[in-house]
Amino acid sequence: MTKTRPLLLNAFEMAGVGYYAQGCWSHPESMRIRYKDLSYWTERASMLDAAGFHSLFFADVLGVYDVYRNSPDPAIAGAVDFPLNDPVIVIAAMLGASQNLSFAVTASTTYEQPFPFARRFATLDHLSKGRIAWNVVTSYLPNAARNYGLKDQMPHAERYERAEEFLEVVYKLLEGSWEDDAVLYDKVAKVYADPAKVHRIDHAGKYFSVQGPSITEPSIQRTPVIFQAGASARGIEFAARHAEVVFVNGMNPEGLRANVDRLRDAAEKIGRGRYDIKVVTDLSAVIGASQAEAEQKADAVRAAQSPEAQYAAFGGASGYDLSKYHDDDTLTSEPAKNFSRSEGARFTSEKKRPDSVGEIKKRLINLSPYASTMVGTPAHIADEMERIAAITDIDGFTLHEFVTPHDFETFVAEVMPILEQRGLFEPARKPMSFRQRLFDKGDRLPETHPAAAFRRHG
Amino acid sequence: MTKTRPLLLNAFEMAGVGYYAQGCWSHPESMRIRYKDLSYWTERASMLDAAGFHSLFFADVLGVYDVYRNSPDPAIAGAVDFPLNDPVIVIAAMLGASQNLSFAVTASTTYEQPFPFARRFATLDHLSKGRIAWNVVTSYLPNAARNYGLKDQMPHAERYERAEEFLEVVYKLLEGSWEDDAVLYDKVAKVYADPAKVHRIDHAGKYFSVQGPSITEPSIQRTPVIFQAGASARGIEFAARHAEVVFVNGMNPEGLRANVDRLRDAAEKIGRGRYDIKVVTDLSAVIGASQAEAEQKADAVRAAQSPEAQYAAFGGASGYDLSKYHDDDTLTSEPAKNFSRSEGARFTSEKKRPDSVGEIKKRLINLSPYASTMVGTPAHIADEMERIAAITDIDGFTLHEFVTPHDFETFVAEVMPILEQRGLFEPARKPMSFRQRLFDKGDRLPETHPAAAFRRHG
Repeated sequence: MTKTRPLLLNAFEMAGVGYYAQGCWSHPESMRIRYKDLSYWTERASMLDAAGFHSLFFADVLGVYDVYRNSPDPAIAGAVDFPLNDPVIVIAAMLGASQNLSFAVTASTTYEQPFPFARRFATLDHLSKGRIAWNVVTSYLPNAARNYGLKDQMPHAERYERAEEFLEVVYKLLEGSWEDDAVLYDKVAKVYADPAKVHRIDHAGKYFSVQGPSITEPSIQRTPVIFQAGASARGIEFAARHAEVVFVNGMNPEGLRANVDRLRDAAEKIGRGRYDIKVVTDLSAVIGASQAEAEQKADAVRAAQSPEAQYAAFGGASGYDLSKYHDDDTLTSEPAKNFSRSEGARFTSEKKRPDSVGEIKKRLINLSPYASTMVGTPAHIADEMERIAAITDIDGFTLHEFVTPHDFETFVAEVMPILEQRGLFEPARKPMSFRQRLFDKGDRLPETHPAAAFRRHG
Repeated sequence: MTKTRPLLLNAFEMAGVGYYAQGCWSHPESMRIRYKDLSYWTERASMLDAAGFHSLFFADVLGVYDVYRNSPDPAIAGAVDFPLNDPVIVIAAMLGASQNLSFAVTASTTYEQPFPFARRFATLDHLSKGRIAWNVVTSYLPNAARNYGLKDQMPHAERYERAEEFLEVVYKLLEGSWEDDAVLYDKVAKVYADPAKVHRIDHAGKYFSVQGPSITEPSIQRTPVIFQAGASARGIEFAARHAEVVFVNGMNPEGLRANVDRLRDAAEKIGRGRYDIKVVTDLSAVIGASQAEAEQKADAVRAAQSPEAQYAAFGGASGYDLSKYHDDDTLTSEPAKNFSRSEGARFTSEKKRPDSVGEIKKRLINLSPYASTMVGTPAHIADEMERIAAITDIDGFTLHEFVTPHDFETFVAEVMPILEQRGLFEPARKPMSFRQRLFDKGDRLPETHPAAAFRRHG
């Protein structure tokens, strides 16, 4: 086993009552109903900040899942990522309750416009002093498309083409519009900025036409830290080129290792460093003082999980309507076009013998179907994290919870001291930008990153 | 003089270094450079909140002014509403630093999409417990259009047509999608919401096509309080129909009274109450312990004002490039199409003899060219506010400052106690929704408002 680097710890959130493992809001101790309250979020931010957690990540969805039973009803009834407030607003509201915690948030290149997007994220980066990351997604949900005026979602290839152009516009605005010494702030001459150093971008492309200049002056990071999670070949190519933090999962540590290597190889191939990308994988932990207590708590989680809600979530992401299958069928046929392939692929292409629908259903409601799930004592959780990190060459974990806020609080109180003691975790204690914390090479994107090509000097 | 009702007090802000009276960031005591710091905003919110101020309003601009000298350079050099951060993010970041202060923010129906817009404002309304207002604008800036992929700005009539449809979609989402008793939060049955009470909106119009349902559950106010400022005939018609708070100005109290009456008449004509709309007018105050000290402070403000910056702002809003005129010309010809008519109109159509360009230039750099400007002792300011309110039948004032944060702090410390003592001001001391504070008739829009038509019951 190789020596493990200190791990990046990233907490997972969604701005709604639902969460990753569907139905857990119904656990007797869950407080997710408080998602509409500011105090819920500021308490969360300040707890994670005090613990030295590195970042808090928000997933996002822009519509309702309606594949399962060909209806939105199971998702509405089960609060399956619905309702969902705007996570960007929630993050802004947490900035004052945190000093060192960074925030990552999902935003879609398919439904956003780059000009207001760049302003929104630059504003967050200014107010947080560089603690902002953007999880780039291209979105897969038909109802989302129809909420934004489209008849149906864009084809997969077109979504990525648009994403490439979206990033180019954002780089032009945030990296190329204002030179570093453009702001003079000369009160005597009444000159705030030198117009010769603030440039229009005059972007005219296939999807976007943006004149500029950027309406915001440069923030500490300029471009936010870029997160990505694409698992398709096109997604990996995109991540290798643009991403600084990538979410990668696998059915088991060996499969995960293969996915991690594939990504690092792709980054190296195009001239970025093998470790210019931080790879993080999902983790769920049920923690007990003894193994028996942990198992008991896991049973209570299973009791709270909702099959209907979980099948609705699976249908929304994969395009497979499980209500149309028998338990001994397999999901070999193609789902509806343009869905996220990664969800279905976990149960089909990764395995030699595809799981039956009955097996898939069982897995979907047995704790977390997607993340590495650990049930045990704090020392067991720490052991497992160390083991997985060593096998897989990952840089960190995205921690999910079943019972809010119990699980994060328990992890912070019981597991993090062990990780720190073993040198597997270095708490965020000093204020700095997120990029500096991740790579220790400054606040801005490195010269090897494609954004650097859009910088202007003198 | 009629007896004056307690006044609504609304503070004016912009999320940048520049501000209404251009150049004042260069005043030796101005701290506007701090606009990028979270602490600047939280201090501001908590100071106004402690004073019992009713609301803090953010203007917004989505590009750079480039009419004056046919160039963006004067606006960039002078920080004329540029750079400008995202005010929605700034407001979200202030929520935790305030309890009773409400927030109003400008957002454009020309450049936003109604679905994410509704989610953003519903999230703000949830987290603030109903303290949010939306200032509806249709935007007038050619550079903004070109930042959003359009060749040029939309014609005035089309902008209003789109605004009407935008509001209809927002009403359908926020008033009509989730019934009041849709949320069950039944942990035993694992049912969060009753799907039979959460409706798609299936809007298919000329500008927007939105399926729904709304992704947010109802917030306290559902629809945010609606602000508006249109001064054209079409703008007044729009305001009379939709707005709850309207910004109205005039060259003098008599002119203002005529504009106020015109608006109230229009509201009454379509079945809303004469006082269902709160009318507020702009106010700038230079306050001194003596008249002489106030005059001295006013001179220091004039010294900080920047003619080039002010002409750039005037050009951006009116379409008139003052660099092309001689001082004895008048602005009788039409400016570039589709600009905000109100800016130029202040200097042309409202007066029997139009001002000469030389006179306009002088006025533009003599304290605030647009707002009622008062220079004097605290008692004088209070007298003037009382007098203007009585003559004009307005409901309140939007307070501007020249020197940040000195002017607001002085107004709070010196003028507000006098207003309160005279019964002209009731501080916001108890938490409640903004709509309830304004009208004392509940949190939701009244049945006489057009939004009520989109509600669904049972």
